[in-house]
Amino acid sequence: LAMAEESSSPSVLLQFAPFQSAVDDGFWRRLSSLKLDTLGIDQSPIPITGFYAPCSNPQVSNYLTLLPESLPPEAGEEASVRGTLSLGNRNRCPVPGILYNTNTLESYRAIDKRSLLKAEAKKIWEEINSGKAEEDSAVLSRFLLISFADLKKWSFHYWFAFPALVLDPPATLVNLQPATQCFTLEEAESLSAACNKWRSSSLTADVPFFLVSIASDSNVAIRPLRDWAVCQGDGQKLLFGFYDPCNLPNNPGWPLRNFLALICARWNMEKVCFLCYREKHGFADLGLSLVGEALISVPQGRAAEIGKDPQYVPNAVGWELNIEKKMVSRRISLAQSMDPTRLAISAADLNLKLMRWRALPSLNLNSLSTIKCLLLGAGTLGCQVARMLMAWGVRKITLLDSGRVAMSNPLRQSLYTFDDCLNGGNMKSVAAVNSLKRIFPAVEAEGVVMAIPMPGHPVPPQAENSVLEDCRRLQDLIASHDVVFLLTDTRESRWLPTLLCANSNKIAITAALGFDSYVVMRHGAGPLTCSSDVKSEAEDALSSQIGNLSTAHVDERQRLGCYFCNDVVAPIDSTSNRTLDQQCTVTRPGLAPIASAIAVELLVGILHHPVGIHAPGENATTCSATGEQPLGILPHQIRGSLSQFNQMTLIGHSSNSCTACCSNVVSEYRRRGMDFVLQAINHPTYLENLTGLTELMKSMNTLDVDWDDESDENADDML
Amino acid sequence: LAMAEESSSPSVLLQFAPFQSAVDDGFWRRLSSLKLDTLGIDQSPIPITGFYAPCSNPQVSNYLTLLPESLPPEAGEEASVRGTLSLGNRNRCPVPGILYNTNTLESYRAIDKRSLLKAEAKKIWEEINSGKAEEDSAVLSRFLLISFADLKKWSFHYWFAFPALVLDPPATLVNLQPATQCFTLEEAESLSAACNKWRSSSLTADVPFFLVSIASDSNVAIRPLRDWAVCQGDGQKLLFGFYDPCNLPNNPGWPLRNFLALICARWNMEKVCFLCYREKHGFADLGLSLVGEALISVPQGRAAEIGKDPQYVPNAVGWELNIEKKMVSRRISLAQSMDPTRLAISAADLNLKLMRWRALPSLNLNSLSTIKCLLLGAGTLGCQVARMLMAWGVRKITLLDSGRVAMSNPLRQSLYTFDDCLNGGNMKSVAAVNSLKRIFPAVEAEGVVMAIPMPGHPVPPQAENSVLEDCRRLQDLIASHDVVFLLTDTRESRWLPTLLCANSNKIAITAALGFDSYVVMRHGAGPLTCSSDVKSEAEDALSSQIGNLSTAHVDERQRLGCYFCNDVVAPIDSTSNRTLDQQCTVTRPGLAPIASAIAVELLVGILHHPVGIHAPGENATTCSATGEQPLGILPHQIRGSLSQFNQMTLIGHSSNSCTACCSNVVSEYRRRGMDFVLQAINHPTYLENLTGLTELMKSMNTLDVDWDDESDENADDML
Ligand SMILES: [Zn+2]
Ligand SMILES: [Zn+2]
Repeated sequence: LAMAEESSSPSVLLQFAPFQSAVDDGFWRRLSSLKLDTLGIDQSPIPITGFYAPCSNPQVSNYLTLLPESLPPEAGEEASVRGTLSLGNRNRCPVPGILYNTNTLESYRAIDKRSLLKAEAKKIWEEINSGKAEEDSAVLSRFLLISFADLKKWSFHYWFAFPALVLDPPATLVNLQPATQCFTLEEAESLSAACNKWRSSSLTADVPFFLVSIASDSNVAIRPLRDWAVCQGDGQKLLFGFYDPCNLPNNPGWPLRNFLALICARWNMEKVCFLCYREKHGFADLGLSLVGEALISVPQGRAAEIGKDPQYVPNAVGWELNIEKKMVSRRISLAQSMDPTRLAISAADLNLKLMRWRALPSLNLNSLSTIKCLLLGAGTLGCQVARMLMAWGVRKITLLDSGRVAMSNPLRQSLYTFDDCLNGGNMKSVAAVNSLKRIFPAVEAEGVVMAIPMPGHPVPPQAENSVLEDCRRLQDLIASHDVVFLLTDTRESRWLPTLLCANSNKIAITAALGFDSYVVMRHGAGPLTCSSDVKSEAEDALSSQIGNLSTAHVDERQRLGCYFCNDVVAPIDSTSNRTLDQQCTVTRPGLAPIASAIAVELLVGILHHPVGIHAPGENATTCSATGEQPLGILPHQIRGSLSQFNQMTLIGHSSNSCTACCSNVVSEYRRRGMDFVLQAINHPTYLENLTGLTELMKSMNTLDVDWDDESDENADDML
Repeated sequence: LAMAEESSSPSVLLQFAPFQSAVDDGFWRRLSSLKLDTLGIDQSPIPITGFYAPCSNPQVSNYLTLLPESLPPEAGEEASVRGTLSLGNRNRCPVPGILYNTNTLESYRAIDKRSLLKAEAKKIWEEINSGKAEEDSAVLSRFLLISFADLKKWSFHYWFAFPALVLDPPATLVNLQPATQCFTLEEAESLSAACNKWRSSSLTADVPFFLVSIASDSNVAIRPLRDWAVCQGDGQKLLFGFYDPCNLPNNPGWPLRNFLALICARWNMEKVCFLCYREKHGFADLGLSLVGEALISVPQGRAAEIGKDPQYVPNAVGWELNIEKKMVSRRISLAQSMDPTRLAISAADLNLKLMRWRALPSLNLNSLSTIKCLLLGAGTLGCQVARMLMAWGVRKITLLDSGRVAMSNPLRQSLYTFDDCLNGGNMKSVAAVNSLKRIFPAVEAEGVVMAIPMPGHPVPPQAENSVLEDCRRLQDLIASHDVVFLLTDTRESRWLPTLLCANSNKIAITAALGFDSYVVMRHGAGPLTCSSDVKSEAEDALSSQIGNLSTAHVDERQRLGCYFCNDVVAPIDSTSNRTLDQQCTVTRPGLAPIASAIAVELLVGILHHPVGIHAPGENATTCSATGEQPLGILPHQIRGSLSQFNQMTLIGHSSNSCTACCSNVVSEYRRRGMDFVLQAINHPTYLENLTGLTELMKSMNTLDVDWDDESDENADDML
């Protein structure tokens, strides 16, 4: 070791190039989901890991980098995937850090930065004094990150600190020059070989602090810090080496600061020779690497004082300056760099995920985003139900309607505009899908142009095949969806879907409007679907506690009713002979949004109930007994009126004479299929005879409340 | 009169060219409004008037024309305007008609056309036999129109009949030739002069049947039918003349049929000479006019039989054939020919006008279409309230908001789409207005980009002027509107509008959302606006029957409360330190549509209440005493919850310590104006001191239900 002569200016202070934070966008994205999905309002500090490397490239000089994997793994994440990332890699020397992510901008601004920095300095100081830093030198370079993530705007306020213990008095520089000038050729070759071995071994590759011991025979060995004592004597020369992220010719990088503090505190040295290990093109480069000599003496009095005071912590500095050397918080917005559709998706998720922070931790967004909803009717109710579903995070929506958008529609049917009415009008189901995509491009919406075959609307023989085709198509559609909303404009168009839902045990929800009143109801489970083989485990678990569970296997009469269960006549043609005010949507405009909102909220309730479609009907009095769900009670029917501004929940059980959902009807449908459907369509009395309604009507005089459905009928001209 | 020799083929039947209906679009338009605005479901036959003219132009040959004025005047229409139209005009010879306009296509199709025609024939027959037809010959040409107006599609199904009594045996033609060939030059000149005099006199111009008497001196006189007896003898020759709408050379027009029936029945003639009076270029044209001779003898036996039977009515024909001579109904659609925006307007009206047919006859569409609504906030609530207002026929809507459309908005804020979020987002108030116009081009919507000054958000001195400017602007906006909806996202932003509404006695309606609950309320009348000079007459009239009327001049404490009346603290800055889930719209998606619908229904209720803003708060129990309005009860507050699916009405009276609406506060605002506002903004305790809340809080411990408003806050970065 050809030690250079002492510098002519021994009082020059040793100055260090600070770390610069470099945060990958992926870090912020992962932080966003961690916050949204897992942390919620929890503000506890989060252990994170930064990475740095010995200088290899002036562009990344002094970088302390945060990557997605800097954050702790989320629940369920593959530990092995992350494990591979932490294998020794000198370009990913881990730096332990801590993240304080606040819930509000105000609390971010109010953070006591001085105390936080001091706390980190204390950790470093304690680990120096306990000897831990000699065992695991990574802990010498801690860092601190405070942040506020404005998840709504994809904007992140943040500030890094790289705590460095301040030597008092500061270190002065005796000498600093390229390593090539400090070694004999032999020493240099041996040093290079030793360095390459250290940085290549998986055991030491990411250990950034080390001892460089040069034997008198010019043989160089690199050893861990804990070997300090072994390296003394025998004419060995000792350099304190570290991976230097800095590429400047006259300054070592930031890690040296705490290293000097350790050397000073643990080994009480006054003069320190150090090696700033740097690389070029992936190999040790002694021309770029520096060797320096510094004086770090602590006055005897103070050293004694420090020794006596266990609470002593050296001063620390390290809050990152901006490019203009100002102490300011930084802010990054990812919105610009993100694909707008992805932004829309994450914004949509945000609305819902925030519900889980406090208001509704049990919200099951997964079941909402995967469920397939079929909306029969794309009128006033259908448009609003589709909007509500999207707002709740439902992504798979099929709208079925046979009509075109008419001039009177856009004012009440919230997916259409004036342009949809021009040139005869676009098909509603197509226009609705386009509108949903304009609202939220990631929605998976489909439109089906089709009329629903209706009982009491007899079919001429030549039209039979086409009607049966429609029946089969509806059957397939219902089979391929999880939920069916009955939002058509006539009573009789709800019959076939009700039957098909009862047959296949699909969730069916009906909404219907009068002039100033509405009814929203969920249909009960199918009559033949609750045999023991399909009884779910959840149901078993709950059956005892719910007791009075309204499923068919308990008691047929306890099943919840469908839209037709209260009727004493079979559905017939209700559209003929209706005057214009009966044909059109003569309802108070406020009704449809209310009924649609309730219909969707009812679905969300069903999806969150442990037994789903089998959930018994609840109301304010029953629910206290059965235990309320987080979303509240799950009624069977909700009826309300705008003339009284009231709303009530009702429970109606299924009828054994129901023309749409009783076991007789469903069995007959299963046995005879389309023949049965065609007979019902052409001969309404057939249903009444089958179900015993004919007999019933003879024996009683029931007054049925008739709900005037909204209508949008296209009366054909047959003159 | 050089009478031609008898024809060589005397058994040729006389054949008549039927009337052709020609309906002006304006007739259908007027029928549409008559039906919508006046008739409703009333199907009574409507007397109408058709018009025809002597032939003047082959293009309009045989036209019986219906014009807008063919329909009876509507209530309030200027009778004089219509009076001028019925002045004698030979081009508008009136034909009495009757219109059967049905309510449904089915009943249109089911019309018993044979009976209707027979009934019209009977009228004609009776008026012939009573002599009335001789006095007013117009009644000889009656007509009948049956129709169904599909007002939703601007499509009209219709069918005309021009009842003609059938002679039995039919008339046979002896002779038919151009009039020029039948007269001497002298006779022809005299005839022309007489005709021109008849058709020019306002007394006779529109009398289409007349007698042509030719004296032996070739002098021609035209006389009314009642002069028949006078025209006998003295060597006079008599022709039966009529305005002939037909231009064919070999056929007289339709009016001659009933004329012959009259001649036969009243004057018992066997051989009839007739003159088909026709014109060309506006003058009598004897070359085009025809003179004919026909035999119309009735066998003696039958004539005696007819004379004995007072119920006898000749057979009649007359349902109009189409161009292919088929008996079919006609249909016309005006939709294609109308301006789309006009179509949209009429379609919008249709929805509402139909309500008046049966459901809500007292609906005041005029007050809705002229009222000016100011919506403070264009977020989830503002968008939906604007939609609901348009659906109710409100046309003047101003939206105020200071924000831009963010990615998370379109899924819940129903006026925005994904495109509105791109490139930083459009201003909400601007995007909302554009969206409203896309829905309904005739809406008069305006957007105001402005933030509402808020108490507890102190203003630095340099910003004072701009904040005061905003205050004055808000003041002007409220002054120029009739209704103010408070739909902002913070409690404190509702304070200044509440005060300004209380000051100027404007209808104010607040909607606010919690996580799964909502409140909608109307604010009471202003505290200083009910002095006797503004007390309306309606109020006087009702005050006795309502009794407990909650207006200030009865009792200050009976005034209905505002949004702040229950508070025991002044509004302060509530946006700072809110976590993301508190800042954002963390509400169940169903809430906003429900609350918005209720807010607008509440407004409609106020507008229909006899005392409007002074209407006392009603609920299901109170209203039975005061008498329910057609729209139902008019509550003060409606609160509801989605977790219980319930909804209730509440009444809260105004507080003398209210920081926004008590007389202290309003008086102080009137006295000190903007100074007062600024002090309230900068020093929240000022309001508490002024209203005595400070004292109140010391003496009591009230727990206030805090409604978490929806928020869409833009937190500024001040680091
Ligand atoms: Zn049923
Ligand atoms: Zn108040």
